[in-house]
Amino acid sequence: MQKSPLENSVSREGGAPPEESTPGLTLLVLSGDMEKGVAACNLALAALASGTRVTIFFTFWGLNLLKKPGARARGSFLARLMGVLNRDHSGRQRLGRMNMLGMGRIAMAKLMKSKGLPSFHESLLLAHQMGARIVACSTTLELMGFSRESLIPEVDDVAGAATFLDAARGATVVTLA
Amino acid sequence: MQKSPLENSVSREGGAPPEESTPGLTLLVLSGDMEKGVAACNLALAALASGTRVTIFFTFWGLNLLKKPGARARGSFLARLMGVLNRDHSGRQRLGRMNMLGMGRIAMAKLMKSKGLPSFHESLLLAHQMGARIVACSTTLELMGFSRESLIPEVDDVAGAATFLDAARGATVVTLA
Amino acid sequence: MQKSPLENSVSREGGAPPEESTPGLTLLVLSGDMEKGVAACNLALAALASGTRVTIFFTFWGLNLLKKPGARARGSFLARLMGVLNRDHSGRQRLGRMNMLGMGRIAMAKLMKSKGLPSFHESLLLAHQMGARIVACSTTLELMGFSRESLIPEVDDVAGAATFLDAARGATVVTLA
Repeated sequence: MQKSPLENSVSREGGAPPEESTPGLTLLVLSGDMEKGVAACNLALAALASGTRVTIFFTFWGLNLLKKPGARARGSFLARLMGVLNRDHSGRQRLGRMNMLGMGRIAMAKLMKSKGLPSFHESLLLAHQMGARIVACSTTLELMGFSRESLIPEVDDVAGAATFLDAARGATVVTLA
Repeated sequence: MQKSPLENSVSREGGAPPEESTPGLTLLVLSGDMEKGVAACNLALAALASGTRVTIFFTFWGLNLLKKPGARARGSFLARLMGVLNRDHSGRQRLGRMNMLGMGRIAMAKLMKSKGLPSFHESLLLAHQMGARIVACSTTLELMGFSRESLIPEVDDVAGAATFLDAARGATVVTLA
Repeated sequence: MQKSPLENSVSREGGAPPEESTPGLTLLVLSGDMEKGVAACNLALAALASGTRVTIFFTFWGLNLLKKPGARARGSFLARLMGVLNRDHSGRQRLGRMNMLGMGRIAMAKLMKSKGLPSFHESLLLAHQMGARIVACSTTLELMGFSRESLIPEVDDVAGAATFLDAARGATVVTLA
């Protein structure tokens, strides 16, 4: 359970389990689409800049955003088949709209770069450095046949719905579904 | 307006209309996709397990998740046409992504079963038994040409946006759109 | 920064920057789909009717819902290409599901009209008249190559993520992604 070195200095309280009492921003990312990931990171970065505690919980297709390039699903034939068909990862995501067999994705990535906007992956790394807690859904990981090692090292925790609810209590909750 | 017999014992307060004052979890399901329905139920079950009051409000395509199999739309030609084209129901939903003409849906359902995960419908029945309040959007019901009788019996209320907002006030709100 | 003349009389507090302290409803619209726009307006109108302060923040594809018909993107070839391919505007949106090359969109619009339900654009104008604050995401505007003048006049502010987070603090937040 790797922790960002900056987490304690950025969060408002240095003590243990503060999710239950401090207001913060909790993001639930259910989608693996590029625009949802980018939106989550933009909100996270704006919140972190003003000293707000941030938790980003990735579940279902959102887990794609945390996969290492080339990560392979294990387990049943079905899990492996889903893994082969679903090749997106932290460095490459389809657009939820106007993907156009990947051309829209490439165009959007170029457009963002030309405007000086960071990619999803760059934003996520920065948010993590600034103290965002990145959680991968344990149920999805098991369902999709991926191991903890197939995820990028910035993942702080692998946990279930109760962990999300703890982080959501009293916080601003934004769902990217 | 059928009520679950367990509702009062699960909720934190036994008194009348507690939505306005008690914290809880309020889910807004706008999508009829399987993954959104499953995510809503997983969150509901985790919250109910810790004694949190849960309301699940289904609107727009989300109403598909509450339809009985074979439910038919009435009214204008358009309403009936939409009903015929939109055949999903509480027991069968398309995947929002990788549906692949139904193959992805079947694969995901098999995968979930092989991992011992309940289907959307099984989870919803359990959540209702544990005290979740299930509300169907009255505006959508009218728009889509469905009657109260075309919905599964676990629906506790048919109500509008004001009811959702009452249940959302002070609660953790998660939107599955 | 045009303000609705009704805003002060509808909001609970007449004083300056009340977003930080008053409860309210804050909607984040990331999608340009008709059903998401309609849902946002329905929630806004129900909240406004009970005197709740409402902010609607449109970002990413949601910005389509604020574009004037015929608005053109400027800037790089890519931005202009995206603009040409993405022709939805405040008066015409695709359905997120069952769009069927535009037939589903037309059918849904007719169905809503036959039931006496207002269109997205009619609802948005009404919500604005009743005091809803309408904000367009500045980052998206820049990214997509649209100017402030290409948006409908009901847009009260063009602002970034920090403005959304301010409006979200302590409010009921509903994301339409």
